[in-house]
Amino acid sequence: MTQSFYPPQRTLMGPGPSDVSPRVLGALARPTIGHLDPLFVKLMDEIKELLQFAMRTQNELTLPVSAPGSAGMEACFVNLICPGDTVIVCQNGVFGGRMKENVERCGGNAVMVEDDWGSPVSVDKVREAFARHPQASILAFVHAETSTGVRSDAAALCALATEHGALSIVDAVTSLGGIEVSVDDWGADAVYSGTQKCLSCIPGISPVTFSPRAVERIENRAHKVQSWFLDMQLVMGYWGGSAKRAYHHTAPVNDLYALHESLVMLQEEGLEAAWARHLRNHRALVAGLEAMGLSMAVAPEYRLPQLNSVCIPEGVDDAAVRTALLQDFDLEIGAGLGALAGKTWRIGLMGYASSERNVLRCLNALEAVLEKQGAGIRTGAALDAVRDSLAA
Amino acid sequence: MTQSFYPPQRTLMGPGPSDVSPRVLGALARPTIGHLDPLFVKLMDEIKELLQFAMRTQNELTLPVSAPGSAGMEACFVNLICPGDTVIVCQNGVFGGRMKENVERCGGNAVMVEDDWGSPVSVDKVREAFARHPQASILAFVHAETSTGVRSDAAALCALATEHGALSIVDAVTSLGGIEVSVDDWGADAVYSGTQKCLSCIPGISPVTFSPRAVERIENRAHKVQSWFLDMQLVMGYWGGSAKRAYHHTAPVNDLYALHESLVMLQEEGLEAAWARHLRNHRALVAGLEAMGLSMAVAPEYRLPQLNSVCIPEGVDDAAVRTALLQDFDLEIGAGLGALAGKTWRIGLMGYASSERNVLRCLNALEAVLEKQGAGIRTGAALDAVRDSLAA
Repeated sequence: MTQSFYPPQRTLMGPGPSDVSPRVLGALARPTIGHLDPLFVKLMDEIKELLQFAMRTQNELTLPVSAPGSAGMEACFVNLICPGDTVIVCQNGVFGGRMKENVERCGGNAVMVEDDWGSPVSVDKVREAFARHPQASILAFVHAETSTGVRSDAAALCALATEHGALSIVDAVTSLGGIEVSVDDWGADAVYSGTQKCLSCIPGISPVTFSPRAVERIENRAHKVQSWFLDMQLVMGYWGGSAKRAYHHTAPVNDLYALHESLVMLQEEGLEAAWARHLRNHRALVAGLEAMGLSMAVAPEYRLPQLNSVCIPEGVDDAAVRTALLQDFDLEIGAGLGALAGKTWRIGLMGYASSERNVLRCLNALEAVLEKQGAGIRTGAALDAVRDSLAA
Repeated sequence: MTQSFYPPQRTLMGPGPSDVSPRVLGALARPTIGHLDPLFVKLMDEIKELLQFAMRTQNELTLPVSAPGSAGMEACFVNLICPGDTVIVCQNGVFGGRMKENVERCGGNAVMVEDDWGSPVSVDKVREAFARHPQASILAFVHAETSTGVRSDAAALCALATEHGALSIVDAVTSLGGIEVSVDDWGADAVYSGTQKCLSCIPGISPVTFSPRAVERIENRAHKVQSWFLDMQLVMGYWGGSAKRAYHHTAPVNDLYALHESLVMLQEEGLEAAWARHLRNHRALVAGLEAMGLSMAVAPEYRLPQLNSVCIPEGVDDAAVRTALLQDFDLEIGAGLGALAGKTWRIGLMGYASSERNVLRCLNALEAVLEKQGAGIRTGAALDAVRDSLAA
């Protein structure tokens, strides 16, 4: 007979999922009610409003897709692309490649704008791509690249799309709640995120928002959306503002309790305060890492405070370090992905996990493990550096 | 400021979600660990084995899709259909219509076999459809129609598909855990289910299984699967048996804790014992309803024990009854769907909610509400009828 599963209490400082607040876990476990219950419908309305708050948008079509961020990404592409459309896709990490896959599976033509992994998307290169492909109907890019820890200039890129009469699709999976995401100010047209990063909610849900321009394009599609599950015209019937909601699929009721609670917590803290906390703890972590003699993989001006790419020192066994952190300290940090596999670690300070306590926990554990590995780091210096940074 | 949400303690006796056991809610709220944590990988292996047990299959490709049953349905269709394929789709309720949508959005040609809502799929009509369309490569049908409470003959239909060299796609959303689902004995090729029915887990996850024949077809596809998120070749890389798992998407970690626990509970009870419990409580409910003078909408030989369609008596206000049950008794039952809207109620006795206590709770509440509405039912007779049924 299989036994019940009791997970250990990890500290999640990888690229996500991040630590979930006990308040959110408590909400998650509340008794399930029906997905058409009037009280649940009221909860859905509140979630829409809270997402509008978190994403800084008045977009009516703002809701949580009942599946992980990858499905939120797919929802944006399948609803906005028709076969034959040209889409400019920026790639500076793993997730731009996934966007390309999405475009092609929708029958679109992906024009790739490539930048180095660890660099931001080049606005100039995108401008050139629009010049070469004036028929492009969509520009897609990642705001916060989870694979590298790099922030791109979403405002400038969205403005460029609008200037060329194209819609923008923005991946804000790792950014939402950790740094500014201002959908309306940017003029972004379709933005998707995830719950398991800086919202510090459980993984499995993907908030999305579509601008009125994007909704207009969806409503005037010549081709049916290829996904029934992700067809926003159908999803709107269930999540829409009308009094009579049409059944589409069974909403993940308990997951939405959790999302609601995590957004209530974000509202209580305030967006700017949450961003400031992420920045403060990021600076403290970097100060500590550099005091140990480690170096960051991304230039300071493009660093994401919630996801810190650290260069693995020469001769250090990547996997052995991560295993020791997990086994001896119950601490999870992330491996590098793709081009950066084996070259970087990714240390997350996301949402609830972005705390002074976690900065110190991580530095102490890393110092102990690296010293044991003979990595030649400076010991005993990190704590003072963290204190100085926090006091600054 | 938005406040935290505290749902009431409902009794969920509609078409799903059904009541979730406190054990499952407890598992759901355990601390989140990483989706690549070695302990989570072990949990995934156990879930695969438990699903093989619950679905009675040795299929290697057996796993929970990270999204609701509608996405599980879509996963089966997008992976097995290529543009131009002919698919025989049986419709005897809402979900056959959704299958047709899926076929068409995959570029397939749907040949519809229609039966009355409230009747099972006619095996003879399907045989005739194969005779008229020998090129059909897939037969798709619903085992347990959630919209009507009708069971179709899955073994006979799957055999017919195999006989004609076609693959079968079976909707077992409402059947799994409540009545026999024997994937290997039936020779079914792709089967999807949901967590929120007779598994009594939270909504949001869809168990699926694919036979070796189905996997072969997936591996030899000429066209890429149109959904990146649901592409089983990619999902297999993450859920597959190999030691090195490839990241695909972030698994809904806590939801999978809950699914694991619900499957452990099913294993503890035993499949046959669970089916027998569903049948016993169904018979007791029907005895009570009939003692009150109500009549069932489905012929006895096709009734699903987990979902009971009851005819709404003449002159009774459907919505008012359901609202009174919800407001005065915290009891949810389901409305009729589609062709049966306003004509039937759907009373679920699913999984954890299939209990003697719930049979009595539902009959008592219904009697009180209907009497108040002047529906002309017999009062005071249901309890004895239930007792006699349970003693039989």
